[in-house]
Amino acid sequence: WRRLYEVAKLLELKARLGGDDGKHQFVLKTAKGTRDYNPKQMAIREKVFNTIISCFKRHGAETIDTPVFELKETLTGKYGEDSKLIYDLKDQGGELLSLRYDLTVPFARYLAMNKITNIKRYHIAKVYRRDNPAMTRGRYREFYQCDFDIAGQYDAMIPDAECLKIVHEILSELDLGDFRIKVNDRRILDGMFAVCGVPDDKFRTICSTVDKLDKMPWEDVKKEMVNEKGLSEEAADQIGEYVSMQGGMDLAERLLQDHKMSQSKQACAGLSDIKLLFSFLQLFQVTDKVVFDLSLARGLDYYTGIIYEAVLTQAGVAAVSNEAQNGANAEESVSVGSVAGGGRYDGLVGMFDPKGRKVPCVGVSIGIERIFSIMEQKAEASAEKVRTTEVQVMVASAQKNLLEERLRLVTELWNAGIKAEVMYKKNPKLLSQLQHCEESGIPLVAILGEQELKDGVVKLRVVATREEIDIARTDLTSEIRRRTSEA
Amino acid sequence: WRRLYEVAKLLELKARLGGDDGKHQFVLKTAKGTRDYNPKQMAIREKVFNTIISCFKRHGAETIDTPVFELKETLTGKYGEDSKLIYDLKDQGGELLSLRYDLTVPFARYLAMNKITNIKRYHIAKVYRRDNPAMTRGRYREFYQCDFDIAGQYDAMIPDAECLKIVHEILSELDLGDFRIKVNDRRILDGMFAVCGVPDDKFRTICSTVDKLDKMPWEDVKKEMVNEKGLSEEAADQIGEYVSMQGGMDLAERLLQDHKMSQSKQACAGLSDIKLLFSFLQLFQVTDKVVFDLSLARGLDYYTGIIYEAVLTQAGVAAVSNEAQNGANAEESVSVGSVAGGGRYDGLVGMFDPKGRKVPCVGVSIGIERIFSIMEQKAEASAEKVRTTEVQVMVASAQKNLLEERLRLVTELWNAGIKAEVMYKKNPKLLSQLQHCEESGIPLVAILGEQELKDGVVKLRVVATREEIDIARTDLTSEIRRRTSEA
Repeated sequence: WRRLYEVAKLLELKARLGGDDGKHQFVLKTAKGTRDYNPKQMAIREKVFNTIISCFKRHGAETIDTPVFELKETLTGKYGEDSKLIYDLKDQGGELLSLRYDLTVPFARYLAMNKITNIKRYHIAKVYRRDNPAMTRGRYREFYQCDFDIAGQYDAMIPDAECLKIVHEILSELDLGDFRIKVNDRRILDGMFAVCGVPDDKFRTICSTVDKLDKMPWEDVKKEMVNEKGLSEEAADQIGEYVSMQGGMDLAERLLQDHKMSQSKQACAGLSDIKLLFSFLQLFQVTDKVVFDLSLARGLDYYTGIIYEAVLTQAGVAAVSNEAQNGANAEESVSVGSVAGGGRYDGLVGMFDPKGRKVPCVGVSIGIERIFSIMEQKAEASAEKVRTTEVQVMVASAQKNLLEERLRLVTELWNAGIKAEVMYKKNPKLLSQLQHCEESGIPLVAILGEQELKDGVVKLRVVATREEIDIARTDLTSEIRRRTSEA
Repeated sequence: WRRLYEVAKLLELKARLGGDDGKHQFVLKTAKGTRDYNPKQMAIREKVFNTIISCFKRHGAETIDTPVFELKETLTGKYGEDSKLIYDLKDQGGELLSLRYDLTVPFARYLAMNKITNIKRYHIAKVYRRDNPAMTRGRYREFYQCDFDIAGQYDAMIPDAECLKIVHEILSELDLGDFRIKVNDRRILDGMFAVCGVPDDKFRTICSTVDKLDKMPWEDVKKEMVNEKGLSEEAADQIGEYVSMQGGMDLAERLLQDHKMSQSKQACAGLSDIKLLFSFLQLFQVTDKVVFDLSLARGLDYYTGIIYEAVLTQAGVAAVSNEAQNGANAEESVSVGSVAGGGRYDGLVGMFDPKGRKVPCVGVSIGIERIFSIMEQKAEASAEKVRTTEVQVMVASAQKNLLEERLRLVTELWNAGIKAEVMYKKNPKLLSQLQHCEESGIPLVAILGEQELKDGVVKLRVVATREEIDIARTDLTSEIRRRTSEA
């Protein structure tokens, strides 16, 4: 590893010094933690987005967009410790600006600014975090978020349940293997900490230690609580008992009877809502994947009620990076973990309103980069070729001096709405025209020759079977449409 | 005007000082020169993008994406004087970064970095310029570019002609009124300057004066050439004669015979290519809108051959800003001018290649913000309501205590792929459910009551006609599909 690192350093240095001519001394790369999407990756990205957007639209969502940068002060005080990861723009005179860190804070700013009190919207856009990139695990400094949120004063748990229904639909349709959606409630966590004897001022820090339970065994989590955070051994053990609990509506009922938990009003409110949530989830037919899990403790400060997170459970699900695919370190494929998360945040919009008026919100964010990684890996593994264009037919000819005739025909096709290509050469070889079709998966070739022109026909060749038939020129577009509509 | 400005200043000051509680002292706004897109604007944006993307795909283009920021040095030396408009990121340790200024330079960087020698790609993304915003004219600091480019060594003028065909198709389909596509060639401009006696070192500066001809009368342009740029009166007059010329293939032929113009080898090469271009444009059936115009002189340095620009010619085409729509200064509606532009740039990729290998490129950029402005204005003027969701049916009830039944039914519909909504209330009033349908253009309501549940039917109401019929529950999804498929 060290040697690899040193070699890379030397290569970088060489690149900086430039070639012999000293003319091109720049480094030809994208910024750290970012990447280009090539056409194949874009085709996969488009497919994933279409599935997600269809689902959001099926549930009646509108969409909005906000600028990539916000006034710096808009983002100030919203992300706690993570604020250090915000990208600032250089002060070039005028306003101080920062790149957005998520889509939730701009959404809250939008609601407050436009005095909107209820909306159901989705927003798909890139966000920016100066984090340590781990591109092998789908962690980038520039990455997409796909957010769906419901803002408005409604009856309890109905919009919350719909968010979980949406996660269920999307993960099922994307066919990523089995998954679980863990749910919990901030009020249950806080109530639990209170009845276990955690001092009020340690709720947040203990909460972030609990959050590590999906990466660390309980023994280590306990050690951190006791040794680093100064919690008593008994308090830690009591927490340990609770956070090992998983179940459904029955668990919420049992905890409502629990002599300790029932002492906390907050916890009881949370538990009643979990019960109500499960009753709606039953109607939505999604309880098979949802589990009430007291160890779930998402990091963000702004959550005030229900929280949830979806994880892929299938053994062997792994994401490989572009580097890995290129052979550099293919062994480093790792589990992708959480692919969606969200919760209720009833206080955030009020932070932006001059009079502090609250707008209750609940939402979910789909962790799309991890999903891309899995889909890319699946595409790589499968024999099926990913098409990067949708071309239906290539207009070709076997003879010389037919450029004008090819352009005339491709114009007819374009004007009829057919997706068609023609080679930008005066006299291309038939073989290279056919090869282009094979490579880019174009299913049909319309071949023109002197004879066909005389007869008023076009020779239509099916690339897969090499079958060729003469079609009257007037019937060509309908024939192409017929033959490519089943695809 | 001054008074309005002063009032605005005072209001801003008041906002800065915050309310009585002194708690919220921030300004609630987006960064200067940027804007949010609300759901209505997004619906229009989606429609415009779909038209453009369909056209790009019909012509067989793949798509790529690049990061929003690049290494600062990647952008250095590409934009001449406009470099001062580049947004830099703050130096927070690590690489020096800048927001992309256009999509062409990142495209050239992508080609060189991946050693790609031929590709036909489109890229739709936001770019950033610290320009003086003129939002009333659709000029923002954050705005979309829709670029289509063909890279590769091909026979002359075939890809160039396809770019013009694409502009023609897009502007026709968007139905923005009549338009003209002006074409010229950098080599013709340079040749013209040479034969008119412009010194070599003044080509660029005289060229940018010529570029002002669409905003200034010839007399003023001439004055600038003579008085500011020190050109001789005769040279200016000779240029004046040429730049007043417009035509088609015939003009190119005439100029090839012109005793002065024909002295320039460069000009002759450009004129021959214009002739060839027009012969392809005839085959593409687009000569009706294309005019060879010697006054066209686009600003960017990197063009090496053919250049073009599309303008809307319909009298009274005007763009209004959001502010104007809100009544603040509605009188300020102005012509939008150029809506597409591009050209051939054969040297740009070579600037990134360590060995300077060239990749010939030609491309076009659709000026989407101006098109949005026009479409918004049209939508505003038309009686037709812009829908911001695609919901087909609202699941409602007239009676109390039917929340569970509503949720059960909406689940059936979602699972069948129907776009459906339900109100997030235990007992919403029928009137408010119907009102929501009217407001958001939902065409159907599925009404549940005790009687319907007993009979195994759903009352389907057509919002527009108020017609109501009972449909067997098992037939409901197919009936909804049938009734909403024609839309």
